[in-house]
Amino acid sequence: MEPGPPGGSRPAERGPCLSSPPGADEAASASPLSAARAEPGRRPPAVAAVLPAGGSGERMGVPTPKQFCPVLERPLISYTLRALERVCWIKDIVVAVTGENIEAMNSIIQKYQHKRISVVEAGVTRHRSIFNGLKALAEDQPDSKLCKPEVVIIHDAVRPFVEEDVLLKVVIAAKEHGAAGAIRPLVSTVISPSADGCLDHSLERARHRASEMPQAFLFDVIYEAYQQCSDYDLEFGTECLQLALKYCHTKAKLVEGSPDLWKVTYKRDLYAAESIIKERISQEICVVMDSKEGEEHIGRLLEEVLKSELNHVKVTSGALCHAGGDLQQIILEQCYNFVCVNVMTSDFQETHKLLTILEESNLSILYPVVVVSVHFFDVKLVPLSQKMENLMWIRGFAKEVRKRNILLYGLLICYPQDEQKLQESLRQAAIIIAALIKERNSGIVGQLLVA
Amino acid sequence: MEPGPPGGSRPAERGPCLSSPPGADEAASASPLSAARAEPGRRPPAVAAVLPAGGSGERMGVPTPKQFCPVLERPLISYTLRALERVCWIKDIVVAVTGENIEAMNSIIQKYQHKRISVVEAGVTRHRSIFNGLKALAEDQPDSKLCKPEVVIIHDAVRPFVEEDVLLKVVIAAKEHGAAGAIRPLVSTVISPSADGCLDHSLERARHRASEMPQAFLFDVIYEAYQQCSDYDLEFGTECLQLALKYCHTKAKLVEGSPDLWKVTYKRDLYAAESIIKERISQEICVVMDSKEGEEHIGRLLEEVLKSELNHVKVTSGALCHAGGDLQQIILEQCYNFVCVNVMTSDFQETHKLLTILEESNLSILYPVVVVSVHFFDVKLVPLSQKMENLMWIRGFAKEVRKRNILLYGLLICYPQDEQKLQESLRQAAIIIAALIKERNSGIVGQLLVA
Repeated sequence: MEPGPPGGSRPAERGPCLSSPPGADEAASASPLSAARAEPGRRPPAVAAVLPAGGSGERMGVPTPKQFCPVLERPLISYTLRALERVCWIKDIVVAVTGENIEAMNSIIQKYQHKRISVVEAGVTRHRSIFNGLKALAEDQPDSKLCKPEVVIIHDAVRPFVEEDVLLKVVIAAKEHGAAGAIRPLVSTVISPSADGCLDHSLERARHRASEMPQAFLFDVIYEAYQQCSDYDLEFGTECLQLALKYCHTKAKLVEGSPDLWKVTYKRDLYAAESIIKERISQEICVVMDSKEGEEHIGRLLEEVLKSELNHVKVTSGALCHAGGDLQQIILEQCYNFVCVNVMTSDFQETHKLLTILEESNLSILYPVVVVSVHFFDVKLVPLSQKMENLMWIRGFAKEVRKRNILLYGLLICYPQDEQKLQESLRQAAIIIAALIKERNSGIVGQLLVA
Repeated sequence: MEPGPPGGSRPAERGPCLSSPPGADEAASASPLSAARAEPGRRPPAVAAVLPAGGSGERMGVPTPKQFCPVLERPLISYTLRALERVCWIKDIVVAVTGENIEAMNSIIQKYQHKRISVVEAGVTRHRSIFNGLKALAEDQPDSKLCKPEVVIIHDAVRPFVEEDVLLKVVIAAKEHGAAGAIRPLVSTVISPSADGCLDHSLERARHRASEMPQAFLFDVIYEAYQQCSDYDLEFGTECLQLALKYCHTKAKLVEGSPDLWKVTYKRDLYAAESIIKERISQEICVVMDSKEGEEHIGRLLEEVLKSELNHVKVTSGALCHAGGDLQQIILEQCYNFVCVNVMTSDFQETHKLLTILEESNLSILYPVVVVSVHFFDVKLVPLSQKMENLMWIRGFAKEVRKRNILLYGLLICYPQDEQKLQESLRQAAIIIAALIKERNSGIVGQLLVA
């Protein structure tokens, strides 16, 4: 199954190599690397990656090629680029897209601030696109600013969940054997039809595997194979490992991959990808207090209820005072969900501070960030209606920050004297907060919800 | 890709055989049948289905076997049963579940009012479970109330999106050839590993297919095959078509299936299934007016904006007056989304009427039904806060109907004199309504949203 909630499997932004302090990703991605470093000779060689992205995605049944289909409003290929980009030992990433998509590709790279990416023109088939990518990396290209790697990874633009450990495994295996590729058990039995459309025979599942991506090769091996191979191979072949075997007699090492190497093929796969990403960025909530925290602080109480109600969700807290120092740290660790508790103030002053910090952090460039501005009211003191009236202008406010990919919601929590009733409305608040974070529903931003 | 929005591909409840007037499903499911009837000899024979559901679903990485995992709070297997049940020419459906799940299975059948289902105990392997199902259908079982069919369909409990047309195709092909099965093109290249974990050779994709479900057999052929086959087959075999070939020399006819025959295997597939189902039940909105409709009726204006804003969504309207006659029709046609426009009244009287009709209709037994209670206000006449105060008790109300799988939300639409401003708030309302219907977020039921 897909990697579960643990922080390490959260989307990988600001990896260890991208000039950022240690974050969840480093925890996630450093381990295999350091393991490699630990063993002499296993230090990864100079590595580049080639990403064929010239497909038309006709199987999706949608006009947009699937690698450009939006997932949480961001093109799928951007997630795949991020997954490779975070791996600091991948020096260059070459993407092959069709002529009419080159401009779009360049604006994706700019908008989502991708690094170390070169764009080349795709060929009419997958193999030709890969070949074009390899040519760009070969030193015999005078105009190329890229330098020839020792090992080249070939991956699909539509496999966004590739993790560093499998990339490292195929690279190390490729350095040793000349070629390596990830495999998975077969989900369905594979059969061979006879000419009359009947079953000729079925293959023994245990003896076969699905060949997935990533694959890795000694650059000279795969480049040689592509230079040798026939037009028929370039037109109708699908398997790079086969080319290395056929033309360089290089037997590829097969590496067991995890299920999250799956390929986004059908529309349902886009749905699945979006759900997985939503799940991954909903694993941590930061409760921001507008005042010093005492044991009896209502924000603290809410934090406790969130902890007890939301399993698998890490609930941290920070204060906006002292210039949000600890908040910066939380942001760097890629928390995409914030609950701003307003006790001292009855306006959006604190929420505004938080939003400013978030906007400056660029946190929302890659994922929509949820901010729930929480206010309390005691029906005995102020009528709910009046409280709501005061807070109505959150709507215009939300509309503004929405443009910067921040989803702002208001939440009014009834604060009765009765201890039990208070717990109940805090529990209700936790359910609402969880729902807002899980769905990231942009249609209801700026709404004032009541618990 | 999965069948898109057209009504015909909406979930199939109250099929043509289940004593209901013509609905979307009949449109969807009658066509292949009538086609079959049109051609002499193609009328489907006496057919039963066997559903092996004894799997542990270890690939899901969750404790619950995947066929019992909830999708929109309903177990996956219930969707598959419904897909078979709606097909009136399938006389009996035999489900094989493990001993410890028999009770759970029976309560699922009762809760979701499934018909024509018999439960038998699963074997330790898939083949043994199927064999148990076949035994229950064989006449030589004294205690069995089932009668032996001419053709038996074998399907997976974890393929909930099977359509009648492919069922009919395999049944007709089975009657002609003795055996038939659905196939799909391979998504990944299939390779054969050598003993040392290297690539031995890769299979030519074009020459192979993935064997999917459903499959169909002349009952005597497959029952004979299971009686003949070895323990090794029963333990390690995966392919029923292979058994028919091996033991009865029956060559199975292969039938191209659609992508929605996919098998729910990993956690991501559950996400995909939920998104597909949500999409399918969000294709129609019924706008219910509380008064006679004039051209200038505000409900009519909202209806128009909904039509223009929500592409691919069918917007119908009905009135609650004359005892909701036309509403009954809309419900029978399986509309799961209602917008109740309150103009004459400023309370929930009309919403209450609608909810009563919905509850009596049992519409929400299988899918959560969304009801948006819409009210209008003119800030110049009544302060928003007061309007909200009046409507606050929707919360308790929503809590009540939630128990019956109805998701109730309140929506206040600002009704300014300015024509342009009115259009803007109606547009905003349409966006909110679309978001509520798309997400079916139970965490925010009872909230009063403002457009």
